Amino acid sequence: MEPWASELAGRMDEHELDSAALKGNPLGDPHVRPLWVLVPPGYDDEPERRYPSVFVVQGYTGQIDMWRNRFPWRRNFPELADQGMASGDIPPCVVVWIDAWTALGGSQYLDSPGTGNYLTYICEEIVPWVDERYRTLGDRANRGVVGKSSGGYGAMALAMLRPDVFGGFATHAGDALFEMSLLPDFREVARALRDEYQGSYERFWDDFRSRPALSKEHDSTLSMTYGMAAAYSTDPDGTVRLPFDVATGKLIPEIWERWLARDPVRMVTEHADALRSMRAIYIDAGKRDEYYLDLGAEAFRRELEAIGITDVFFELFDATHAQIEYRYPLSLRYLAERLGS
Amino acid sequence: MEPWASELAGRMDEHELDSAALKGNPLGDPHVRPLWVLVPPGYDDEPERRYPSVFVVQGYTGQIDMWRNRFPWRRNFPELADQGMASGDIPPCVVVWIDAWTALGGSQYLDSPGTGNYLTYICEEIVPWVDERYRTLGDRANRGVVGKSSGGYGAMALAMLRPDVFGGFATHAGDALFEMSLLPDFREVARALRDEYQGSYERFWDDFRSRPALSKEHDSTLSMTYGMAAAYSTDPDGTVRLPFDVATGKLIPEIWERWLARDPVRMVTEHADALRSMRAIYIDAGKRDEYYLDLGAEAFRRELEAIGITDVFFELFDATHAQIEYRYPLSLRYLAERLGS
Amino acid sequence: MEPWASELAGRMDEHELDSAALKGNPLGDPHVRPLWVLVPPGYDDEPERRYPSVFVVQGYTGQIDMWRNRFPWRRNFPELADQGMASGDIPPCVVVWIDAWTALGGSQYLDSPGTGNYLTYICEEIVPWVDERYRTLGDRANRGVVGKSSGGYGAMALAMLRPDVFGGFATHAGDALFEMSLLPDFREVARALRDEYQGSYERFWDDFRSRPALSKEHDSTLSMTYGMAAAYSTDPDGTVRLPFDVATGKLIPEIWERWLARDPVRMVTEHADALRSMRAIYIDAGKRDEYYLDLGAEAFRRELEAIGITDVFFELFDATHAQIEYRYPLSLRYLAERLGS
Amino acid sequence: MEPWASELAGRMDEHELDSAALKGNPLGDPHVRPLWVLVPPGYDDEPERRYPSVFVVQGYTGQIDMWRNRFPWRRNFPELADQGMASGDIPPCVVVWIDAWTALGGSQYLDSPGTGNYLTYICEEIVPWVDERYRTLGDRANRGVVGKSSGGYGAMALAMLRPDVFGGFATHAGDALFEMSLLPDFREVARALRDEYQGSYERFWDDFRSRPALSKEHDSTLSMTYGMAAAYSTDPDGTVRLPFDVATGKLIPEIWERWLARDPVRMVTEHADALRSMRAIYIDAGKRDEYYLDLGAEAFRRELEAIGITDVFFELFDATHAQIEYRYPLSLRYLAERLGS
Repeated sequence: MEPWASELAGRMDEHELDSAALKGNPLGDPHVRPLWVLVPPGYDDEPERRYPSVFVVQGYTGQIDMWRNRFPWRRNFPELADQGMASGDIPPCVVVWIDAWTALGGSQYLDSPGTGNYLTYICEEIVPWVDERYRTLGDRANRGVVGKSSGGYGAMALAMLRPDVFGGFATHAGDALFEMSLLPDFREVARALRDEYQGSYERFWDDFRSRPALSKEHDSTLSMTYGMAAAYSTDPDGTVRLPFDVATGKLIPEIWERWLARDPVRMVTEHADALRSMRAIYIDAGKRDEYYLDLGAEAFRRELEAIGITDVFFELFDATHAQIEYRYPLSLRYLAERLGS
Repeated sequence: MEPWASELAGRMDEHELDSAALKGNPLGDPHVRPLWVLVPPGYDDEPERRYPSVFVVQGYTGQIDMWRNRFPWRRNFPELADQGMASGDIPPCVVVWIDAWTALGGSQYLDSPGTGNYLTYICEEIVPWVDERYRTLGDRANRGVVGKSSGGYGAMALAMLRPDVFGGFATHAGDALFEMSLLPDFREVARALRDEYQGSYERFWDDFRSRPALSKEHDSTLSMTYGMAAAYSTDPDGTVRLPFDVATGKLIPEIWERWLARDPVRMVTEHADALRSMRAIYIDAGKRDEYYLDLGAEAFRRELEAIGITDVFFELFDATHAQIEYRYPLSLRYLAERLGS
Repeated sequence: MEPWASELAGRMDEHELDSAALKGNPLGDPHVRPLWVLVPPGYDDEPERRYPSVFVVQGYTGQIDMWRNRFPWRRNFPELADQGMASGDIPPCVVVWIDAWTALGGSQYLDSPGTGNYLTYICEEIVPWVDERYRTLGDRANRGVVGKSSGGYGAMALAMLRPDVFGGFATHAGDALFEMSLLPDFREVARALRDEYQGSYERFWDDFRSRPALSKEHDSTLSMTYGMAAAYSTDPDGTVRLPFDVATGKLIPEIWERWLARDPVRMVTEHADALRSMRAIYIDAGKRDEYYLDLGAEAFRRELEAIGITDVFFELFDATHAQIEYRYPLSLRYLAERLGS
Repeated sequence: MEPWASELAGRMDEHELDSAALKGNPLGDPHVRPLWVLVPPGYDDEPERRYPSVFVVQGYTGQIDMWRNRFPWRRNFPELADQGMASGDIPPCVVVWIDAWTALGGSQYLDSPGTGNYLTYICEEIVPWVDERYRTLGDRANRGVVGKSSGGYGAMALAMLRPDVFGGFATHAGDALFEMSLLPDFREVARALRDEYQGSYERFWDDFRSRPALSKEHDSTLSMTYGMAAAYSTDPDGTVRLPFDVATGKLIPEIWERWLARDPVRMVTEHADALRSMRAIYIDAGKRDEYYLDLGAEAFRRELEAIGITDVFFELFDATHAQIEYRYPLSLRYLAERLGS
């Protein structure tokens, strides 16, 4: 295999959207956002044909250009998607890469006074924009969403919250079961703030922004935990509430409950009808996932089962949380098959 | 410093007690138990003099003989206690080492249908037995309890539950703030049971007992987590309830609440009067403690402060959870000074 | 800072070279190779002006596209180089990114019957090609080479072996002092081969190529160690000799000597004149480098000192081996300043 | 299983020897040393019977009292030896526990101007002393030596150097193949000295002795590496020579050669006759040994094979370097069987 980027068989269009939903977002992040659309090989040769569409959201700290990042001896997802469609492994579909980066590292694809209205941006702006310009099958029944890590979270959450928009979803190691995946980080946060930042998150952010990002041991946990609070437990006036006492890590139950209300595992019951309406549900995770999102995947599957949903793809495979882009073609095929008819 | 065991300046007596409280304990553990008593140098020369007493409980998996374990270039606690009294650093006192080992590794020094009546054994049997045979100042005002890790837990719990027995306590890295110290282990348990024991704790125990104990990676976490449940959430009929779904780690709130009811941090409010009656409170922990018991120490201290208790010894020092026996002389002096008058 | 790729102030040209030196290389790798050239802002406005040139080589497993990889909240090297020149921090120069990827992960920028003639490719083909097409100051005195990790190795080795081509070099955490950086990996190799591949490197490569690369724990060490042998100790007939018995890790002195002959630390004495002729020597490394290349940097500096070279930039900074692209602007400025006159 | 120390079936005698060999040792360590002797059950009932003897040496930092250390749910070696003989699993023999502790942590059981004459102490003083006082079969053919880690080293070295004294030996994870087991530590030493002790071993020792020993991250590696140099490469005048430049870790070949001359793997050829005369050779190690002594075990076995010795017990088992005292009964049986006839 040659390592370099290769010509695509299909066509990748790079766009920019000027989002009304993101205008005036609380972090001052740009409201003009990139968007990539891949059409399958032969798209231009069959001008009447319509295709299912799959929208892709990213893991925490992701911005759209990172989809082109190259890892040794590997293909990236756009290439894998293109090759899969070229070879016939993956039914032809329109794949849309979304950018929902924020200055905190991400948005969890929700509307929050802490980050901005990213759910609205996706569902009310991007989806119609794509449907207008591309020959998609313009119904929720033919539209899916997929992601990994925080992107897997986004896929679950968007499908549950907006079943009018999405008829299927796929989550690779998606954030779920927050007491197993997120809560154990709080103690690292409390200790790092105590030992390095006099107990203050503001001092952390000042330091973080003053030097190469993510160059200190606790940068990732400190920034991500804060970002989760910005997404899950920000007051209407923009005050970010942490679900624990930063001095000790002691849980603050009323804030922690706000996080749990956003935990996919806890959302299932309330969104049972939405989930039952899905035509494709794909769940996987690595068995050595550093965030134990394999447990979250299993818990989410069990909640689905409890409301009678058993027709799901489910697999725990041998991997960590990192470098599992080779799973995307599996979920893309699954979604394209189920949403294509 | 010579490395070998040295003659004590005081006198160490080794006893055995036949405990009524432990008879018929649910694990079938022995009811005849060892007990060590160290009297200070000069004890026999002053036949009228009475001394404060300090009772010592152990960390998880501890049994009494381990107090004689030797670590390179170090003295063990009995030697340090003896030397401290011989040199005058530590006021003379009677030090009592308690054995509360169980087949699960420990008892948390509570009464539980999962392990046995260890609190009763200590408070109703050992203490009177010692008072009868040794010239202790036989009042709760002159009696303290100390321990590290689960022993620190025991010290806090015994003092709060039995202020009629203990008038002071010292906790070194004592178990506390369970969501920071114990909960993060649950995910390791769930995954290990899934991958190695078909999801069954019984299979784990069968395997554990069939080979050298603690020789596999997850042995310690699996056995200790189960032991905590045996101490904190066992039904009257002896059924051990785990506070999480073993398949996923998902918390079971009603069982988890039973654990929290035993968390020293949460016990403070209910036992405020008991705590206010203490004449000596000593709290420390290593800042790199693997169980983050430094956070538990801080949280416990803050709860004390919230009920008006500020006259406490408190220190976070630079160490991990292991090999901190050199802290015992500090707490022993503190207790002996405060409880001696 | 916006996270997305931004327009360059200068101009980046992407070329392909058809290399005679790489034709028929032993690994069957492509002989047509990508090459990028960045010219500074204003290059086209001053058609007579000539510039110093800096050639950039990569770390192990690198291929040229990876220079565009994006890391959260960071700029990549091409952007940093461009911005530095645009802002005036870095004197204008022509920067050339070289691709010397091989199927084993790299070439160490040497000529070897195990990988191919990459030194020749760089010195005899790329350099003249660039000089012909760009307004470089076409003398060795104005030409530098820089890299990180294996690229740092390449910078040191190319400068020592071809002082007729390069008049300065910069090494960021460059491979050096092989007994501290490479030898300790051999034990991991021996054990992994024993436990997972029946002691056979062939079985490893078969497995490695059959699945997502670098997805198993020892993949990186196994592939890199082999790649080093391909570069340092391959017989003329193409037989790759490992410097240790794969069954035990026991050193094979005569092969290990062939590695040491390629160790920059050991090359200094033989290439003393070449080194003395350098107009710019820049050395740095992170103090927490996982390969202990900070020790290699110090050892290399000491060897230079021993032959009388003390006018070098030298810094050990607080970082690991990863994500230190923010150091490139420092070395680029250093080289451009010294080689520009 | 009850966890407490139990009555032995045989008899353990505790002695003290006043050693002429250790008098005036360079570290000022005591020359009066403890010695334990275990006789099998029934020893006193058969006053004419003679027994094979097995001498036991310890791992680094060991002193004799540590043999009584208790680990949860485990028996210590004296108990296991006694129980094995009581049950008939292990043929009756006299087991002798030796103390060769030094202020640096150990002696490697050699004579060295850096530590003292421990080989002489063992072979010329202890062995005759035991033979005089106990009914041993007083021939080298019936005398073995066993140990773990540095004790395993001692077993191999003593047998090779003094085949007139020992006719068999057993090594559990014994130090061997120094480039795989010891050399990789040098880089940690160099970095720790640089970052914490201004490059000076003296400063390290001053610090080490001023506080609880082994309480800092690099204490163990720093002290042990120095101790090895004291044993392997001390000049006649007492100057301890390190085999590497402390500033960089760069090997100093002539000193490193002195270490290799003491490496069991390299000693085999010179001591081939001694080894061929052995009546029992037992070799094992854990496959996850942190010092990779499994590779050393395999390399040692291969060297034996190369000189025609294949009648050896050899096993690599699933374990780390720690807590493998349950292997001693296997080697003790092996030695007692082979040396008993």
